[in-house]
Amino acid sequence: MEFSSKLIEKAVNEMSQLPGIGKRTALRLVLHLLKQPKEQTGFLSQALVAMREDIKYCTSCHNISDSMMCEICANKSRNHQIICIVEDIRDVMAIENTGQFRGIYHVLGGKISPIDGVGPSQLNITTLVEKVKSGSVNEIIFALSSTMEGDTTNFYIYKQIADCEIIISTIARGISVGDELEYADEVTLGRSILHRVPFEKSFKNN
Amino acid sequence: MEFSSKLIEKAVNEMSQLPGIGKRTALRLVLHLLKQPKEQTGFLSQALVAMREDIKYCTSCHNISDSMMCEICANKSRNHQIICIVEDIRDVMAIENTGQFRGIYHVLGGKISPIDGVGPSQLNITTLVEKVKSGSVNEIIFALSSTMEGDTTNFYIYKQIADCEIIISTIARGISVGDELEYADEVTLGRSILHRVPFEKSFKNN
Repeated sequence: MEFSSKLIEKAVNEMSQLPGIGKRTALRLVLHLLKQPKEQTGFLSQALVAMREDIKYCTSCHNISDSMMCEICANKSRNHQIICIVEDIRDVMAIENTGQFRGIYHVLGGKISPIDGVGPSQLNITTLVEKVKSGSVNEIIFALSSTMEGDTTNFYIYKQIADCEIIISTIARGISVGDELEYADEVTLGRSILHRVPFEKSFKNN
Repeated sequence: MEFSSKLIEKAVNEMSQLPGIGKRTALRLVLHLLKQPKEQTGFLSQALVAMREDIKYCTSCHNISDSMMCEICANKSRNHQIICIVEDIRDVMAIENTGQFRGIYHVLGGKISPIDGVGPSQLNITTLVEKVKSGSVNEIIFALSSTMEGDTTNFYIYKQIADCEIIISTIARGISVGDELEYADEVTLGRSILHRVPFEKSFKNN
């Protein structure tokens, strides 16, 4: 791609480093910014720099936060004895949206994935194990994606805390609400039968 | 969407103002930046601000440029008597890539589109008409998209320069190279028959 302006070229190159954004999309975005008032580009770049420079991570659960302790960990009405283990902030947001969980979280910051060069030492596993061994935890819920990497991570953590006297559970795998049975894959359908729940429980929310 | 950090929220909000980027995609991009070195966010925002603040438009053809006159207009080996009328910089880049055009361009900056509130006065039409009426132009080539808006714009400009003694042409509409005939739409196929070219011309490049 040849550009008539070095400024455009540089902006497009930087923009296309973002995941899922190629050179063409980057050019479309840059031209859009050119048509908008100058302030919009200013606000965007200020917001990005402020976010990158000033962001903090909760010292307890490693969630992204504006202070040393995130709102969830600082909330005393939540049950601090139940910890839900998730991959990143998006999973925290998704579970919070359900309104079904009143415990606290522990954000790993990724999954063990040798292909991507992510080993256990790069994840927030040590602090989790310490927290569990300190005896202040009753239950651990694994809420990672149901992939090879997710399962590996679950198992790695499980092996380190298996001798602690706590409940270790994982979120239920089964047919999505609203899904047709015939389109479900075999493994999911199999698990949904294996882990069937009493019918009365199925229409109660808690 | 509820965020655990105001900084993330602001960055996501600004990012999702870009066309085709929703809140979820914006969050994905922002979290990606968080995982990268701080410099990357710095480079990105600097490039965007520099582009928005310092960009210039060629005083002759209105193409985006780093100087008062773009490289194409400043190039004396090009034929300044043939002007190709395009919508924006992307079209200039596309035509330049073909290597088939040695004239100069005139960038309108959009198409007449009442639905989007774009009238002729917002486009660079006046300077084009002046240029044509000054007598320095031999041929005008319309190279706008073949849409209602493109055709309207072509016709609007045509009416203003129809009494000038110049050649006015439009780029050929027809079956794309490599396309199967059976999948072509009727209008395109019809035009490709109406505007058929001598066979000998069809395999010559110039």
